[in-house]
Amino acid sequence: MAKERFIKVFPEIVKDLEDYFQSIGIPTIGIDWFKKNIHYNCLGGKLSRGLSVVDSYEIFLERPLTEYEYKRAAVLGWSVELLQAFFLVVDDMMDQSKTRRGQPCWYLMPNVGMVAINDSFMLKSSIFFLLKKYFQNESYYILLIENFHEATFKTEFGQLLDLLIAPENDIDLSRFSLEKHSFIIEYKTTFYSFYLPVVLAMNMAGITDEKDFNQARDILVPLGKYFQIQDDFLDCFGDPNITGKIGTDIVENKCTWLINKALEKATPKQRKILEENYGKKNMDSEIIVKKLYEEMGLREEFELYEKESVSYIKELISKVDESRGLKKDIFITFLNKIYKRYK
Amino acid sequence: MAKERFIKVFPEIVKDLEDYFQSIGIPTIGIDWFKKNIHYNCLGGKLSRGLSVVDSYEIFLERPLTEYEYKRAAVLGWSVELLQAFFLVVDDMMDQSKTRRGQPCWYLMPNVGMVAINDSFMLKSSIFFLLKKYFQNESYYILLIENFHEATFKTEFGQLLDLLIAPENDIDLSRFSLEKHSFIIEYKTTFYSFYLPVVLAMNMAGITDEKDFNQARDILVPLGKYFQIQDDFLDCFGDPNITGKIGTDIVENKCTWLINKALEKATPKQRKILEENYGKKNMDSEIIVKKLYEEMGLREEFELYEKESVSYIKELISKVDESRGLKKDIFITFLNKIYKRYK
Repeated sequence: MAKERFIKVFPEIVKDLEDYFQSIGIPTIGIDWFKKNIHYNCLGGKLSRGLSVVDSYEIFLERPLTEYEYKRAAVLGWSVELLQAFFLVVDDMMDQSKTRRGQPCWYLMPNVGMVAINDSFMLKSSIFFLLKKYFQNESYYILLIENFHEATFKTEFGQLLDLLIAPENDIDLSRFSLEKHSFIIEYKTTFYSFYLPVVLAMNMAGITDEKDFNQARDILVPLGKYFQIQDDFLDCFGDPNITGKIGTDIVENKCTWLINKALEKATPKQRKILEENYGKKNMDSEIIVKKLYEEMGLREEFELYEKESVSYIKELISKVDESRGLKKDIFITFLNKIYKRYK
Repeated sequence: MAKERFIKVFPEIVKDLEDYFQSIGIPTIGIDWFKKNIHYNCLGGKLSRGLSVVDSYEIFLERPLTEYEYKRAAVLGWSVELLQAFFLVVDDMMDQSKTRRGQPCWYLMPNVGMVAINDSFMLKSSIFFLLKKYFQNESYYILLIENFHEATFKTEFGQLLDLLIAPENDIDLSRFSLEKHSFIIEYKTTFYSFYLPVVLAMNMAGITDEKDFNQARDILVPLGKYFQIQDDFLDCFGDPNITGKIGTDIVENKCTWLINKALEKATPKQRKILEENYGKKNMDSEIIVKKLYEEMGLREEFELYEKESVSYIKELISKVDESRGLKKDIFITFLNKIYKRYK
């Protein structure tokens, strides 16, 4: 329901972009390509980041949104989805992934290839066109822009660290650690996926105190880490019929919570098995690593982590100072959406 | 002299970025990588775009800049250079180029590869960090940001059209035309290389009338086209000892002014020769095309174009209304820098 309403706004923003392109004289061949690009890369996912903006804004206002308010919150939501699409298009290239959301990665589509890099840029540029069109007369216009810039830069640093520490074809487990893992997921995931949607809704709702931005960040960062660690867990232990994807983290030498937890616990003999099999491009090695994960009790370790993490987050939420407009409900809603998820 | 002074500011902006990264806890391995990236990709070129910002600002103020003014204009200049670096890093990947400014392209350096995509993003993000640091309290801060966003989007569209019309490995000269060529160079080159440096200087100098932005654009776009057509000419007819590079446009199926002019003039027999040899990956074909260019009198065609174009631009400059602060000298300086250049 909420998702359908949100999706209805998508053709409107595509139309806004199309009108702009026509007004500056872009030839049809370019506009048609851009439309294929934006449709292929923005739709088909869970849209949880985009929906978070709308949901959070409604919680802040404590009443249903008017049509006008909904539209503008949805434009910001789609802007976060555009940012996500921008990252995913090139992440898939850098990781040499084959599929995304059950279809071939964009760069693998006919006639796309390296053009996908420029396509990703255009998704990103679309954000700032939309912000200008819908918000240029608002006092918080500049804050929206700065929040996108800042989240982008941090995500890029997370991606860089991930690429440097876990390059797919240069396996060296001694570079891994739970601490580095924690840093990577904080930068690569939590800012743009968790903090950004909420802070944009705060900008719209007129919540401006630095203390509240800090409060939000101090909860959303651990919440985002919990989400990403679930993701790592589901990649290995999830049911592909439910998650809709077959995990590839082990084969691709990913710096996941599981491998770092395994390395922390491993006996010298187990470490040797990990070193011999992690990141290797064959199914036998993958099975050996998975079996070892099971033997080492990583399922139980994850459950323990989940329990502790959720209890820590709930504790933080209980302490939120709502006096300037921040709402505990924002964080409770987030937590409920992801707690014990199977996909 | 001017270049040396400008280059002296570079370590200062790198330091600004480094301090920021340290303040948000980025590990050394990431900061060191970023520094390699920014040094490799921002230095070694002509820096003409960056210097244009400083020069234009000084012309607007009609007096030598103070240290404070110089520094800030130079920060904007380096921001344009960062934008240029952002484009070049990925252009080289999309074109599968081998060298840039006499050294291997960044993506071909050891351990870089596809990481270069993320590196290009970080160069771009650096711009907005610098704008915030140096200009956030200025009334024109938002204009600076919007000018970067707009120039970026237009450049990306130019790049897209270029990639769609002239993909390196799918040669079809029927897609080419002088009209499309004109569109591509307008979008891909003129906005960020010619219009952006001047409009940033106008923002700083407090020239705010829409009429003056239009006046500037109406001259800088044809000026930028003239520059790019020179570039196309020099790629084929320039002296490699002077230009410092060996032209590859013919072999790489580039949609240049020369091939479009040749197609316009070609007899059916000449067109056949072009179709059989343009974009082919062998030196014989390249020599055949070059010989045909000579026979068809493209040198003379270029000289004619240059004469007409320069006279048209001079005519435009003579009509500039300077009453609100725009200066003819801006455009004259530009034109003098590029007129009859050999590199």
